[in-house]
Amino acid sequence: MTRPTDAVVVGGGIVGLATAWRLQARGLSVTVCDREPGTGATHAAAGMLAPVAEARWGDERLLPLALESLRVWPDFAADLRDASGLDLDLHADGILIAGRDADDRRILEDLLVLHARHDLAAAALSARDARSLEPALSPALRGGVLARSDMAVDPRRVVRALLASLDTAGVRVVRAHVASVTRTGGVARGVVLEDGTRLDSGAVVLAAGIATPSVGGLPEGAVPPVRPVKGQILRLRGEPLLTRPVQGFVHGSPVYLVPRTDGELVIGATQEEMGVDSRVTARAVYELLRDAIALVPDVGELELCETTVGFRPGTPDNLPYIGPTEIEGLTVATGHHRNGILLAPVTAAIVVAVLTGERMPPELLPYSPTWPVRRAPVVVPT
Amino acid sequence: MTRPTDAVVVGGGIVGLATAWRLQARGLSVTVCDREPGTGATHAAAGMLAPVAEARWGDERLLPLALESLRVWPDFAADLRDASGLDLDLHADGILIAGRDADDRRILEDLLVLHARHDLAAAALSARDARSLEPALSPALRGGVLARSDMAVDPRRVVRALLASLDTAGVRVVRAHVASVTRTGGVARGVVLEDGTRLDSGAVVLAAGIATPSVGGLPEGAVPPVRPVKGQILRLRGEPLLTRPVQGFVHGSPVYLVPRTDGELVIGATQEEMGVDSRVTARAVYELLRDAIALVPDVGELELCETTVGFRPGTPDNLPYIGPTEIEGLTVATGHHRNGILLAPVTAAIVVAVLTGERMPPELLPYSPTWPVRRAPVVVPT
Repeated sequence: MTRPTDAVVVGGGIVGLATAWRLQARGLSVTVCDREPGTGATHAAAGMLAPVAEARWGDERLLPLALESLRVWPDFAADLRDASGLDLDLHADGILIAGRDADDRRILEDLLVLHARHDLAAAALSARDARSLEPALSPALRGGVLARSDMAVDPRRVVRALLASLDTAGVRVVRAHVASVTRTGGVARGVVLEDGTRLDSGAVVLAAGIATPSVGGLPEGAVPPVRPVKGQILRLRGEPLLTRPVQGFVHGSPVYLVPRTDGELVIGATQEEMGVDSRVTARAVYELLRDAIALVPDVGELELCETTVGFRPGTPDNLPYIGPTEIEGLTVATGHHRNGILLAPVTAAIVVAVLTGERMPPELLPYSPTWPVRRAPVVVPT
Repeated sequence: MTRPTDAVVVGGGIVGLATAWRLQARGLSVTVCDREPGTGATHAAAGMLAPVAEARWGDERLLPLALESLRVWPDFAADLRDASGLDLDLHADGILIAGRDADDRRILEDLLVLHARHDLAAAALSARDARSLEPALSPALRGGVLARSDMAVDPRRVVRALLASLDTAGVRVVRAHVASVTRTGGVARGVVLEDGTRLDSGAVVLAAGIATPSVGGLPEGAVPPVRPVKGQILRLRGEPLLTRPVQGFVHGSPVYLVPRTDGELVIGATQEEMGVDSRVTARAVYELLRDAIALVPDVGELELCETTVGFRPGTPDNLPYIGPTEIEGLTVATGHHRNGILLAPVTAAIVVAVLTGERMPPELLPYSPTWPVRRAPVVVPT
């Protein structure tokens, strides 16, 4: 038994850590529980903050949340840098969308229509202009789009900075798995760890990504459905080739290349693989390298340093669940799928609002699991 | 100072270890020196024992040595298994040579002429027959050859077995780098280690692979020229796909796939890269996976477990140097290039003959660095 805190955050990925940090900054006492903070989907993520470059027809309902989080990212990053003394490698020169062949160029044209409809900051580029921005792009490129406002950050640096800031602020990070949520009179009032230790709290925030459904102590349906979506991602190193991230389409397949200041290049990611097979497959590595080399030929000369599998928390309607649940005292912040890095700041802000009783901007309410249309999840065609 | 031994072997790759083991078996006291035994070219090697599948026009001078070593491998393996109690994963079902397109089939036809000229055990296979031997081969295959007598072994297991056997036999393995050879009146009489320790011996055997030229204490030209030849190799794991190794040609590029009994599949190897860049490049991984998947499509579903760079000791005329040198007491066993695993038993036998004053079969004499035509090395066209 330890002293009760105002909130226990279950999950130490970027969402859980950012939420704990922001709750603490608002004066709440917080405990975070994760066996290995920052080693889940966050560890695999490339860190594109790309509501424009990753906007897709059919997924527009995510846009208000994504754009709001992009808007607050620079301040979030500046605060975090000040609190931790660590650099996050934030890139704010936009993201270049590139099309390899004529069909890929049509994909870009189609995206430009979507961008225009939502008034997103995107400009068509000739292949020549794209190559003058990024000379390492293949001469065979057929067209480009510059998503000027999109950014990128190094998620592993963000985790280190959040852990350092939490440490400085005296927030306890318990390196243990949460077995269950405890309830008193139906109200969530803490958690029990895998070793039986009980942590009492005024509120519980479930931010456990794909592990969210495995947290016990809750009635069926109390926690929204989250499924693991496998992604495979490569890390290469060598001569810097790009000054900004490139989101490419190569013969219809998406591939992205995210450069870091230190010479790392992150290449991802395989799409929408179901299941919990955590193996890095030969085919995924082959196809990622093939498409990356087709866009940026000199990628072939880089060193392949790391292959990673991540499991992103997907939801039936492709929207995250952020907000209160039917259970008093229980708030969720999960289901961020491919957008956990982008959405961490706005997610933390929403959870702070929920726990402190603040009024939320109405456009952020529809991401709550209690929002009426989300109780019977709709399967959106992919 | 320690007691002098009959021989110091410089280098603990498969060649040095096998040589030390065979010398000890003949009653000589032996010391082996290597900072990290078995971690050089041997660690990267796939372990094909393939004088037939790897026979090439222009390289026929290696054939007598290669065939003799293949002939003695089964006994060598049996002895080593008995001495160590360890299994070497020796495969003796032949190697299948596969051609992907019509041009690749012409490469096979050309090789069959070479095989016939040297009376090598090789049989043409229709694509259908090749696939009935190895059903995982692509239906798009255009032809095959079965090299019935070729074999394969796991080099890492061989190293473990050799180290265990040396240990049992009381052979000292000094985990240190040799700085120089010591000479008394011009005669090699031991070595000095990197820390200054002196090891005296009746004879010195240089088996240091690519490190051979860096051993000091010898006049220029005393040690034959050896240069590092980079190779990149992949290790995958999963459902067993092949019952025997496949040496393939895919649109003119060679690629081999060597299955192990435990489910590992070794894929290699990039050819003839010069220099000492030890990075695993994206292009090498991409091309190896591309060609392996073109031959055996289900390779795509395997897990990519390891990428390795090895530096093989190449020589100007593509033949190893095995035998006495101009310096009395100094024997070399190096320059085995892509054939170190295959040639280890015959190399050990030659060094034993040299050190014990045995008569060597005349067909094995031409690999000595003192053989007349080798003093002015000929560059063989590749």
